[in-house]
Amino acid sequence: MSRDPVRVTVWNEFLHEQHDPAVRKIYPTGMHKVIGAALEASGGMTVRTATLEEPEHGLTEPVLAATDVLIWWGHVQHDAVDDAIVQRVQQKVLEGMGLIVLHSGHYSKIFKALVGTSCTLRCREAAEKERLWNLEPGHPITEGIGDYIELPNTEMYGERFDIPDPDKVIFISWFEGGEVFRSGCVFQRGHGRIFYFRPGHETYPIFHNESVLRVLANASRWAGKRVSLAMECVDAPPLEPIGRNQPA
Amino acid sequence: MSRDPVRVTVWNEFLHEQHDPAVRKIYPTGMHKVIGAALEASGGMTVRTATLEEPEHGLTEPVLAATDVLIWWGHVQHDAVDDAIVQRVQQKVLEGMGLIVLHSGHYSKIFKALVGTSCTLRCREAAEKERLWNLEPGHPITEGIGDYIELPNTEMYGERFDIPDPDKVIFISWFEGGEVFRSGCVFQRGHGRIFYFRPGHETYPIFHNESVLRVLANASRWAGKRVSLAMECVDAPPLEPIGRNQPA
Amino acid sequence: MSRDPVRVTVWNEFLHEQHDPAVRKIYPTGMHKVIGAALEASGGMTVRTATLEEPEHGLTEPVLAATDVLIWWGHVQHDAVDDAIVQRVQQKVLEGMGLIVLHSGHYSKIFKALVGTSCTLRCREAAEKERLWNLEPGHPITEGIGDYIELPNTEMYGERFDIPDPDKVIFISWFEGGEVFRSGCVFQRGHGRIFYFRPGHETYPIFHNESVLRVLANASRWAGKRVSLAMECVDAPPLEPIGRNQPA
Amino acid sequence: MSRDPVRVTVWNEFLHEQHDPAVRKIYPTGMHKVIGAALEASGGMTVRTATLEEPEHGLTEPVLAATDVLIWWGHVQHDAVDDAIVQRVQQKVLEGMGLIVLHSGHYSKIFKALVGTSCTLRCREAAEKERLWNLEPGHPITEGIGDYIELPNTEMYGERFDIPDPDKVIFISWFEGGEVFRSGCVFQRGHGRIFYFRPGHETYPIFHNESVLRVLANASRWAGKRVSLAMECVDAPPLEPIGRNQPA
Repeated sequence: MSRDPVRVTVWNEFLHEQHDPAVRKIYPTGMHKVIGAALEASGGMTVRTATLEEPEHGLTEPVLAATDVLIWWGHVQHDAVDDAIVQRVQQKVLEGMGLIVLHSGHYSKIFKALVGTSCTLRCREAAEKERLWNLEPGHPITEGIGDYIELPNTEMYGERFDIPDPDKVIFISWFEGGEVFRSGCVFQRGHGRIFYFRPGHETYPIFHNESVLRVLANASRWAGKRVSLAMECVDAPPLEPIGRNQPA
Repeated sequence: MSRDPVRVTVWNEFLHEQHDPAVRKIYPTGMHKVIGAALEASGGMTVRTATLEEPEHGLTEPVLAATDVLIWWGHVQHDAVDDAIVQRVQQKVLEGMGLIVLHSGHYSKIFKALVGTSCTLRCREAAEKERLWNLEPGHPITEGIGDYIELPNTEMYGERFDIPDPDKVIFISWFEGGEVFRSGCVFQRGHGRIFYFRPGHETYPIFHNESVLRVLANASRWAGKRVSLAMECVDAPPLEPIGRNQPA
Repeated sequence: MSRDPVRVTVWNEFLHEQHDPAVRKIYPTGMHKVIGAALEASGGMTVRTATLEEPEHGLTEPVLAATDVLIWWGHVQHDAVDDAIVQRVQQKVLEGMGLIVLHSGHYSKIFKALVGTSCTLRCREAAEKERLWNLEPGHPITEGIGDYIELPNTEMYGERFDIPDPDKVIFISWFEGGEVFRSGCVFQRGHGRIFYFRPGHETYPIFHNESVLRVLANASRWAGKRVSLAMECVDAPPLEPIGRNQPA
Repeated sequence: MSRDPVRVTVWNEFLHEQHDPAVRKIYPTGMHKVIGAALEASGGMTVRTATLEEPEHGLTEPVLAATDVLIWWGHVQHDAVDDAIVQRVQQKVLEGMGLIVLHSGHYSKIFKALVGTSCTLRCREAAEKERLWNLEPGHPITEGIGDYIELPNTEMYGERFDIPDPDKVIFISWFEGGEVFRSGCVFQRGHGRIFYFRPGHETYPIFHNESVLRVLANASRWAGKRVSLAMECVDAPPLEPIGRNQPA
């Protein structure tokens, strides 16, 4: 395993922070900057950021070629993400780039393209309490996390969450209002590792929470394997003699 | 469980049979007709067919609304399938319609949209022997099938097949030329059951093989659950009192 | 698929009902009788019962040979179940018999032998509310069940539940006191289908709840496939010529 | 992640090498010594060995407490392994110790206890060719391994292999005589990672093959996570107020 730093790109839609004063108060420079700073502070990672309004949404070929893990936050402008960029990101994930999808990113084009389902769910914005139970205390993603993470005020996401069966469910959330949710889900697609992590509503200071940031740092290390394996259909010569059954 | 007949629609690209005399000799009226006749003969199913060149590829809203299981064979004209029809079929699968994807359909738009991966593989056309080992003799799909199915002459598909981990691997193939392949794979997406079944090259009489047809009949009964569950995001009122943690 | 009735055997430790007046008041003739009557009333099933204190715990070879699905409730006397009977039941499950494990049966010898883990969990007896969210409304086990089942007073079981990843999680519970739990879990072992279903504490009238009984009837139909496939290591002659690589 | 060396214990039944001159010729000091030397030479690991005939089979509490990964080779004397030691090893695996099971170890008490199935399979000893196809070139276990590993002469193991669905299938084997086999399988049980790896028959020099040894070194690093998490049922006080639904 390489000891080189994991190269993370944090992608943010970055609209709420510019247009909604309440959100700007919590994240004056944008969520991507807060997340990126926390990752760099945790060590072993180099971080760049990219946003919707940049050319090619900041996700040019050279940027992706130098990215081991892409973190994705989007909400109100999923449709504004160019299909060609979505395909480019999907291809990179299949070749081995990690992808961490946050909160409302469950409805992003890239996540839906990779899992193939509707990703519908129940939701409610009522500043309620959430407790994320840790089902996998031995998994690299939960290193340093105890039995659960508690968030005093969150938007609720409830089941049924229409996703394929995850390869592993890391967290299940309890909500004050009566629902549950698979809040931390691991998927492999192609050679890439994908982690969906539920917390992150823009009007609560979720990305200032130490445990949430710890999970993101752990997940970035876990997903950033630094493999890059091309995929193509191969017309292959036989490895063993053929012909005993040839039609006459 | 309903005892009503399972309503199957067999979709075929239906080009090889029209333009290639060698294929037409094996399937004069098209593969879809041969498969459809076998399903009807097996009992408990009503069958219609649809092809690429029909309006909306024969997959209109009323046709899909009356379809419990869709069987899909395509090869050289995957790109000619309209994206809107692909989305329509995908939506129906998520709501509960079964989907059986045959052979080169691994590269169809609909299969790739549902699984999210590149679906690349190794291949070779050398009339070689294939033996499909039955890993799940207790599964409804393999009812009446013994330890393996042997096909004297097939096109080879070899690993690595770039698909997400199947919910269950039903068959693994051995090929004379030295390769292996996960030839029968089950996936659930949304509420729909998907079965990928590898055999079916157009230049060999695969769909005249009794065991292959038996598997298709079994799989149609298994995938045609007749549920239809709408999917939507729900803004849900709380089920329990909220408010103890409201921010001041 | 056979239309013959599914043959169910309901096994109950049957000690609480004999020795604890509070439990006897709820289940005068034993939980097994209440469950068995509900299954028979639901149609398409024939039911017998068996208890710990019967010879061979009522699970003789002839009884198991005539059982398609075994339902298991145990709590305080798991250790009193004979290892030879556990092995016999395990063997039958591997050959294709269904097994439905209820509530505290998570800690039974037979469940632990089949899943291989410690099956530890959190618990609390505080008459609290439970809401079982239905993650698989299209699955045969949840036919007729809506978004969730609500139980006003239950014992709490909380994560982390030490089980292998289930083949499918059918229900996740929300508890009033703040926990969550994978309350409906499907496993295949050998050719047998296993369903773990959490509700069922002896001091609450859980098995008088219509939705709980509906799930048990659905699960019995689903698990009772009526296959019986022997398992043995086979010393197999080659199917293809060998020898090109023989050591000199 | 700790940079401390991974502490590996290689366990070998060590009977063939003492009693069969043909095997002794290939492994004069035992397979465990050959495997252990290769692991140490690969770097980052400290290795000890243990055998059936040592007191407690060499698997005392202190040895296991200082073991991150246990490698297991057994064949003709599975029954001679003490049940108490099997339980001790199983407990350690559940707490986080890695376990790598080789070849005929599929039939060992420890593997069967952890997976819960019969582990039956087809087999044949005919010095035939095996080709292990690499399905997961991006997985840590296959680092440095190409499309496949070829072994000129092996014992054949064929499907159906009665195991629970693996968390991931790493290798599928092709055999000259016509069979296939899931030759590299990953399972998690408790917090422990388990890897079953098929090659390793005693009469062929399998553990002198560079690719086989490379896989064992990779798998040891992957499975040796160095977590140790106790498991117990916890009687837990409520985290939220209870009582609104108490029975009168």
